[in-house]
Amino acid sequence: MTIRPWRKLPPEPLAQAKVFTLCRERACPPDASPGEAEARSFYVIHAPDWVNVIPITPAGEVVLVEQYRHGIHQVTLEIPGGMVDAEDRSPAEAAARELEEETGYVAASIEPLGYCHPNPAIQNNRCFSFVAREARKLKPTRFDGNEELATRLTPLRDIPALIANGQITHALVIVAFHRLGLRDGVKH
Amino acid sequence: MTIRPWRKLPPEPLAQAKVFTLCRERACPPDASPGEAEARSFYVIHAPDWVNVIPITPAGEVVLVEQYRHGIHQVTLEIPGGMVDAEDRSPAEAAARELEEETGYVAASIEPLGYCHPNPAIQNNRCFSFVAREARKLKPTRFDGNEELATRLTPLRDIPALIANGQITHALVIVAFHRLGLRDGVKH
Repeated sequence: MTIRPWRKLPPEPLAQAKVFTLCRERACPPDASPGEAEARSFYVIHAPDWVNVIPITPAGEVVLVEQYRHGIHQVTLEIPGGMVDAEDRSPAEAAARELEEETGYVAASIEPLGYCHPNPAIQNNRCFSFVAREARKLKPTRFDGNEELATRLTPLRDIPALIANGQITHALVIVAFHRLGLRDGVKH
Repeated sequence: MTIRPWRKLPPEPLAQAKVFTLCRERACPPDASPGEAEARSFYVIHAPDWVNVIPITPAGEVVLVEQYRHGIHQVTLEIPGGMVDAEDRSPAEAAARELEEETGYVAASIEPLGYCHPNPAIQNNRCFSFVAREARKLKPTRFDGNEELATRLTPLRDIPALIANGQITHALVIVAFHRLGLRDGVKH
């Protein structure tokens, strides 16, 4: 069996959140006759692309960030990340900017680890992951309005245990470490 | 610095999608005086918990599914998964049900691999991952209304290449394979 794409109709914005827009989209099954009679509705979150970055210090420590997350009402342990803003010229530039804003760290290099789809069923965006090597604390932090983050330096070798024991639970953070492991040929 | 939780006020539903509800939530910073004057707004997607499952056949092949995803308007390669329904007694039961509905495969065992938060910033739910061993095609598929899936049997050893080369991009699918690798002590 071959899975074929549906015919997409223009999206209709339903609700504007701060960092995403909920849209109703309509699409016709591959076999449907032309016209909108057979269109079905789907709800899709439209968001800019996201980035996250694994900052590694010269001593081999990862610069993790602790912050309060309003989706789950808990303090989480993550890597720095955020949205690709309009003024960012590339996802790599967004990653370097978020790293500096959230931690004050600046890296000698920002290397791409590829992208994932955070949720291809209900979201339209991608998340690009990076590794930032030789990261050093050179600047003050600059938090967004409701942000407050604390940095937690953690040896890279301890990351698998933090994922296995449930201290790191953010899917996109786990994906970044998975891609770093694929790149380096070791498990993180 | 210690990151403290905010004081949460009751959520207000803004828009009902099929499989999630967009809510506006208000919360007060940890240091705010009592009362709602300092409450700030956040937008959170309320959804049931999700599950996904890595089905492995007696021959060591993973039962992948190909399907059209309306969020990104592309055909994707994933593992079976879905929502924990009201009638499911546990995430494991939901995983076995989704496996059978989407592929017709039934497994000798469904073992938990832990959970992640798909997006703790803007979603309230978790995704539980499982590995289903000795999976065999015993039943017909039973697709939901707009679902159409094709199974693709793929050797488990080929999964790292499919992730590295961008054929598998779904974040929650990558998380499941990462957790299987942590469990088995090898990289998938």
